[in-house]
This record gives sequence, C-alpha cells and structure tokens, in this order.
Amino acid sequence: MTPRVWFFAGGKTGQFAVSKMSAVRGEPLPSASRLYVGQEGGAESDAAFTLRGTVSNERYTTREEKTELLRRQVAIGREEARQGAFIAIKKNEAWWALTQDERRAVFEEQSSHIKIGLGALPQVARRLHHCRDLDEAAPFDFLTWFDFQASDVGAFDDLLGALRCTEEWKYIEREVELRVERIELGHGRK
Amino acid sequence: MTPRVWFFAGGKTGQFAVSKMSAVRGEPLPSASRLYVGQEGGAESDAAFTLRGTVSNERYTTREEKTELLRRQVAIGREEARQGAFIAIKKNEAWWALTQDERRAVFEEQSSHIKIGLGALPQVARRLHHCRDLDEAAPFDFLTWFDFQASDVGAFDDLLGALRCTEEWKYIEREVELRVERIELGHGRK
Repeated sequence: MTPRVWFFAGGKTGQFAVSKMSAVRGEPLPSASRLYVGQEGGAESDAAFTLRGTVSNERYTTREEKTELLRRQVAIGREEARQGAFIAIKKNEAWWALTQDERRAVFEEQSSHIKIGLGALPQVARRLHHCRDLDEAAPFDFLTWFDFQASDVGAFDDLLGALRCTEEWKYIEREVELRVERIELGHGRK
Repeated sequence: MTPRVWFFAGGKTGQFAVSKMSAVRGEPLPSASRLYVGQEGGAESDAAFTLRGTVSNERYTTREEKTELLRRQVAIGREEARQGAFIAIKKNEAWWALTQDERRAVFEEQSSHIKIGLGALPQVARRLHHCRDLDEAAPFDFLTWFDFQASDVGAFDDLLGALRCTEEWKYIEREVELRVERIELGHGRK
C-alpha cells in the first residue's frame, strides 16, 4: 500500500540527481544537487528545502474519466523509468474562492486537464500530493511527482506545454519544476 | 480572519460544559466534562481526547447553493448562542472510493445535504473542519462545530434527524456527538 504522506527534500543525498530547476512562475526553491523522495525518516536534516504532501481522494475526476485513467496509467517507480520530474504548484485566491462546479468547469470543460493527461499515458507515471490541509500552512498547494523513460521526455514536455496554456494555469501563482535522474547503484549513490 | 487549524479537546478545563456524549455509530470518545474549542496553545496537555482539523475550501457546493448559503448563514460565536454541538464523523472506504461526481450525487441529489442544512439557517451556525489530509492519520474525516440558542435546540435536532436518514449517512462508519453549553463568566469558568 502506498504511504499517505511523502517528503521531497532538496539537498546533497537524495536518490535523484537534479539536472535542472525552473521557477516557472514566482519564487524559485533553494538550489540543490539531489532530490530525496520518500518518507520522513530518510530526508536529510539540513536539506535546502523539504516539502511534504498527502496522497488523497481525487477532487474532480468522474467515474468515466477514472475508468479510462485506470485502464491506461502505470504505477510510478518502474525500473526503466529513470527520468523524473517534481512540480510544485500554488494556485491563487481566486481559484480557491471558486465553488466546486466552477473549479471543475475550469479544470476539465475549459482546460481538458484530464484529457491532456491521458495523452501522456502510459509513458508518464504520476503521483499527486495535496498540501492545503496539512497541520502547518505550506508554501504550495500541490506537489506532483512524475517518472518516465529517457525516450519519453518529449511526451512529458508536450504534456507540460499543453497544460501551461490552459485556462486553469491562469490561476497558478507559483510553480517550480525540477528535472531529475535516478542515480544508478554503484555510481555515487549515497 | 478565521484561523485555519482548530483544536477540540475533551477534558476538565474547556469553555464548554459537556451535557451529553453519544456514540451514534462506532466507538465513543473518552468521556470528558468540558470541551475546549480553539487553537493549539489553549488545550490542556492531559486532555482525555484532542482532535484537530482544518478549515478548507468546500468540496461539493455549487455557486447557486453557495449564494443561498451566504445569504442565510450567520457566523459562529454569537453571544446569545450558548448551546453548542460537536460532531466527529468518519466515512467508510466505499465513500472515498467513489469519484467526485458520484460523491456529489449521493451528497446532494440523493441526500439533499445542503437543502436540509439550509432549513436550519439562520438559527444554527456551523464551521466544518477537514482531517483527512493532516500530517498524521486522524481518527475522523470531519469535525463540525455548531452553535445555537436554547430556543433553537429543536431546529438543530430536526437537522440531525433528517441528515441521519439520508443515503449519504449509510457511508458513515463512525459518528460521535457532544452537546455542550457555554460556561458563563463568573460561574466556574477556568
């Protein structure tokens, strides 16, 4: 069973080498050469940044969409998926002031978030984490962790490019993207 | 601005005298003579139970419903509203396995949760707290805090009675209800 709470720590000792960090909108994160992805105990105590989020129920997906997602998606962590991406997002107050039906309409009817995502399946695997209802106020609302093979980087780039042109993305006030590569055992892994 | 995180502690020193605790479904909470409602620092350290939750965005309300709710609801904490109720609820796995459209359909189209709630406005004030996405797994999914005048106890009882007969309530696996009364200043308040 997947743990509910996940930690993402930028520092010197994670399992992933950071190849690029982009502050897509708003403030960047402190720079780091490695990214740790896992549970609390494994993150280094003096990390440059530590973010956490919880795996939760979906907020917008309909049954029909879910059936299609389940049919096409693959679990994250495939041995051959050595490329990763970590995207942290904060939506603005205008988004959170919308009602559920309004948010759904922007998310899918206007922005095709799920439809665009389906286009990258099964090449790109994904796990979404929520941060808005943690005990302590968090700097982001969502943390998303992706993995894919090197040969599927293009599909992932297309996915990001399409999502960032949507109506939904107008509500994003901060977005930071890290591209990472899994460090091979015996090649400098700590 | 309303704080985001609220604590509910059953013990000996809260601002509210507990008049009744009912384990409506599943396990009760440890018994307590007082209920504390507030922020973390104010709760007694050896409370019989301490529960916490976050005020968050709504999950099901449409714009039309929200407009009507805003038009009729009153803020919690009115001086004359000396009766309170604290209701802690955990929904079952079947509920959380539903998709958003399915949960909404049970919540409102089948169960009229909002419509029933509107029937108790403006007499009953309410604040909902979410517990599912806290850092640590919590025993309940939702904590709801209500207040009303003694003369409106009947309206509140009718509200609970109607909600508990709905399709939505079939998904509730644990529910504990506390009825409380605000302690008057100078009458034994600690």
